[in-house]
Amino acid sequence: MPRYKLTIEYQGTGFVGWQRQENGIAIQQLIEEAFHGFCGEKVLAYGMGRTDSGVHALGMVAHVDLQDAQDPEVIKGAVNFHLKPNRVAILNVEEVPDDFHARHSAVKRHYLYRIHNRHAPLTLTRDHTWFFPRKLNVDAMHDAAQILVGHHDFTSFRNVACQAKSPIKTLDKLDVKRVDEEIHITASARSFLYNQIRNFVGTLALVGEEKWTKEDLKVALDAKDRTVAGPTAPPEGLYFVKVEY
Amino acid sequence: MPRYKLTIEYQGTGFVGWQRQENGIAIQQLIEEAFHGFCGEKVLAYGMGRTDSGVHALGMVAHVDLQDAQDPEVIKGAVNFHLKPNRVAILNVEEVPDDFHARHSAVKRHYLYRIHNRHAPLTLTRDHTWFFPRKLNVDAMHDAAQILVGHHDFTSFRNVACQAKSPIKTLDKLDVKRVDEEIHITASARSFLYNQIRNFVGTLALVGEEKWTKEDLKVALDAKDRTVAGPTAPPEGLYFVKVEY
Repeated sequence: MPRYKLTIEYQGTGFVGWQRQENGIAIQQLIEEAFHGFCGEKVLAYGMGRTDSGVHALGMVAHVDLQDAQDPEVIKGAVNFHLKPNRVAILNVEEVPDDFHARHSAVKRHYLYRIHNRHAPLTLTRDHTWFFPRKLNVDAMHDAAQILVGHHDFTSFRNVACQAKSPIKTLDKLDVKRVDEEIHITASARSFLYNQIRNFVGTLALVGEEKWTKEDLKVALDAKDRTVAGPTAPPEGLYFVKVEY
Repeated sequence: MPRYKLTIEYQGTGFVGWQRQENGIAIQQLIEEAFHGFCGEKVLAYGMGRTDSGVHALGMVAHVDLQDAQDPEVIKGAVNFHLKPNRVAILNVEEVPDDFHARHSAVKRHYLYRIHNRHAPLTLTRDHTWFFPRKLNVDAMHDAAQILVGHHDFTSFRNVACQAKSPIKTLDKLDVKRVDEEIHITASARSFLYNQIRNFVGTLALVGEEKWTKEDLKVALDAKDRTVAGPTAPPEGLYFVKVEY
């Protein structure tokens, strides 16, 4: 069976996330239903991982196997047609070898978190950023973030529902910079724990508000205890950017 | 009576535009109602001009007169509170002299038009850009746009409902550039005719598709006839950016 790699963009607002759930509409389900609408096959769309309810994607990757080979451009056009009017779009379709696996073959994942840091309520960016009205010290956030980079036990930043075997991960990059009224946090690693980035961001916001020092962040990391780190930042600021294979 | 200059941001989606209308909710009305909620006064919010249904603003300016002087920061906070949950926010409030008039005192207005030029359907930018799936030649668009810059009779780009006394205006700038997947068109002038920028953009898209040459654009301008220029681009790509006094 020919295998296809799909690159997918979506606005997570109102969806339960990538993976099928009982309690709402998942992106995975929309993709599978659109394939059914296109070619009548009941495909399984294997994602590079999950994204939570409300989280966006600029370049989610999934793979599907089809009974019959199809032109990638035809797949893209037809599946996008069947995805309407949802805010989900296939950006690219590519035939890949049988041993390609969207999740297992991934070597690096990249995320972006957008904080809109201003006093006035949000209008155009309301669904696309975390509204944070109090002043944030971006340099302090970036400096503290460097404590998290490297090979660590990230239990303090792992959601209790996380199913990963080990809390030990290598974080390659965690940069914090100001972009006009926004603060952009970019994170890269082979893989992440459940809610890891949102827990990083919620904790870094404490540093940005100067409620915490970078030493407090170090203590929280070393504690290996979720209850001592900061809160989970909301999903609307998080974007899955891309995955490398 | 003390006069206040308001700088306002809004997402135009679902509103009938700045000015009060019979057929829906206007931004002007929301602002006036929010002032009433705040201080009990029935104010009139004079805008720097109109924006159409669905058009956004990053820095609309209006002025209001209040019976009693109020701290600008208090006005901002309270009016923003009463504007919730609409996607309309006061960015700045400033006390101004009695002879300041949001419309008459304006010396330059700046607009931005965003085209999202790609094949895949839009997700995150759907309400914020004009979705244009066919290839556009940006250099040709920018080159042709320069024909429109200067002092001209813009009858060919003026909506039939336009109430301006004269169709003769001076266009100071009309730049077209690519920004990743988007095309940004920036326009500056003392004032614009009704639908002028959207008519420019709809016509420049014909040039971008290479259906029209810049000579065709010159013929359309010289014809002084709305029916010979291109179509009106949709409102969701247009942003009122700022006004200079």
